[in-house]
Amino acid sequence: MTTLEDIGEREAIQQIVSILHSSPTIAVGPGDDCAALAYNDHYLLLTTDMINSQTHIPSKMTPEQLGWFIIAINLSDIAAKGGIPQAILLSYGLPRNTTTEFLHKLTSGADQCAKEFKITIIGGDLKESPEISLTGTAVGLIPKSEFMPRTGIQSGDIIAVTGTLGKASAGYHSLQLPKPNHEARQGLFKPYPRIHEGRILAQTQKIHASMDISDGLSSSLYQLQQINNIGFRIQEKQLPISPQLYHIKKDIPLDIIQETLHFGGDYELLITIPKKHLPHIQQLFTSNTIPLTPIGIATKETKILLENTTKTIPIENKGYEHFTKSH
Amino acid sequence: MTTLEDIGEREAIQQIVSILHSSPTIAVGPGDDCAALAYNDHYLLLTTDMINSQTHIPSKMTPEQLGWFIIAINLSDIAAKGGIPQAILLSYGLPRNTTTEFLHKLTSGADQCAKEFKITIIGGDLKESPEISLTGTAVGLIPKSEFMPRTGIQSGDIIAVTGTLGKASAGYHSLQLPKPNHEARQGLFKPYPRIHEGRILAQTQKIHASMDISDGLSSSLYQLQQINNIGFRIQEKQLPISPQLYHIKKDIPLDIIQETLHFGGDYELLITIPKKHLPHIQQLFTSNTIPLTPIGIATKETKILLENTTKTIPIENKGYEHFTKSH
Repeated sequence: MTTLEDIGEREAIQQIVSILHSSPTIAVGPGDDCAALAYNDHYLLLTTDMINSQTHIPSKMTPEQLGWFIIAINLSDIAAKGGIPQAILLSYGLPRNTTTEFLHKLTSGADQCAKEFKITIIGGDLKESPEISLTGTAVGLIPKSEFMPRTGIQSGDIIAVTGTLGKASAGYHSLQLPKPNHEARQGLFKPYPRIHEGRILAQTQKIHASMDISDGLSSSLYQLQQINNIGFRIQEKQLPISPQLYHIKKDIPLDIIQETLHFGGDYELLITIPKKHLPHIQQLFTSNTIPLTPIGIATKETKILLENTTKTIPIENKGYEHFTKSH
Repeated sequence: MTTLEDIGEREAIQQIVSILHSSPTIAVGPGDDCAALAYNDHYLLLTTDMINSQTHIPSKMTPEQLGWFIIAINLSDIAAKGGIPQAILLSYGLPRNTTTEFLHKLTSGADQCAKEFKITIIGGDLKESPEISLTGTAVGLIPKSEFMPRTGIQSGDIIAVTGTLGKASAGYHSLQLPKPNHEARQGLFKPYPRIHEGRILAQTQKIHASMDISDGLSSSLYQLQQINNIGFRIQEKQLPISPQLYHIKKDIPLDIIQETLHFGGDYELLITIPKKHLPHIQQLFTSNTIPLTPIGIATKETKILLENTTKTIPIENKGYEHFTKSH
């Protein structure tokens, strides 16, 4: 019998989607960061993300960080489409021996993240569960003309990424160190959704495609390749690598480039834009604390390649995938 | 240390809500069947429900029934507010040894329920989990003037319920029988959300309050009592008891009235209306396959009482509550 372990998360999702009936009234359905329902001249954006303790929650995460995290990763999907957050729902599956102190801290962390992005937790559910299981559902709005889909990439497009890469990897590896490195841990435990950057990008109405890179850069590039039938040529020296990753490498042997390409957990936005619009868009980011960095170009050839000064090599598809062992 | 087992589900929810910051832009927040966001002359209704295998999924449920169930219970909350379903999201937490056959049947059952109510599953999530954990989030719309809240009950209101009571109890107890009773099981495993009845009721604009009775009739009455500061006098002989419950009682000793009052799992609507509007509303239900049955009256006195021909006794608050042992 075939199991989810055999086929992996993304193949399983494809099988689910193939079973579902579709409707012409749905503007964007499964397969993008958010679903979109047309509503007058806006899209209503809807997205849901679940985390489970055994497979997704490191034991060193505090309850406040866990609460922040479940809200943040849902908002990251709204950010990827350029949306304006409206509200969020949060469902708790918790063991019966959960302390009220844990519940309060978890809720407080979730509320802090919601407040940071000017929304409230408007509803949810609470059920008994053998393990901690949290599901958030975020709601956003965006004028139709500003929506940034995953599709629409043309060869010659510049591909760019917000913020830095490898923060979550640095945080993950720092957990091995005898002394806690709080700044590194933040990169893993306290992602800051790029809502503001998503809005800057969306309002230009020049973005061809956008997604968040929570599964890792390589995985995201392969997902874009598959639905757009293009390739990418990434410049190694342009990758905006987190200083934290270099810092952690002093104590733990790490292949910086491999970590940057494959680790995942960095809730940044990956976008493509026509080359001619790059200067204007970069200018919009000059006064922003989070940079937008061009890292390569979309190509007709469907390969995904990494160039440095001495060689060009294929980037492997090794991002995080549930049910399979990928890192 | 205080745990969830000590305080129970409803007290825990109250503590969660007390921690969350609120916003004046939210029309209806936590504490009702759905949250509501004002959007032009409509409310956008949002609700989420989670089920977990260890605590909520009987082993005799087929994967198709499980898929139907998670969609149906979310739509029941939309029905309770009178909403028109728009779309649903479904998140799967599944063990890695889940077979693709199970995944397909589960998805097919969920899709069937969505299709029955003319919506599609527009998105979701899939994560590895030690146990089966499913979270649905339903989206509905309703003209503001038709929204049916949980609050607004006045003493003298007639309290009425759709359909029959005790179907889920009959289904649950039938699982003990050596020979499967498929019709009884349907009452437990395949709830049919009262979307159509919710619309009939909402369009009258005469309903004072409405909720679904998934936690049981007694629990629902106590929840309405608390937020409306009223009581109820229920007439035992008027309770629309499921014929299945009488049928199961032939084989299994059951207290029909206790099961009807407390068991829960019947996804019916409980509403109150001013007495003068009852004839008109009952007329709207005459051609409907699902009846609306008046079962009592709201009273100034905040007691919840059951009257029969010989006596009047208090109804206990014994509905299903997570984290505590209540039936």
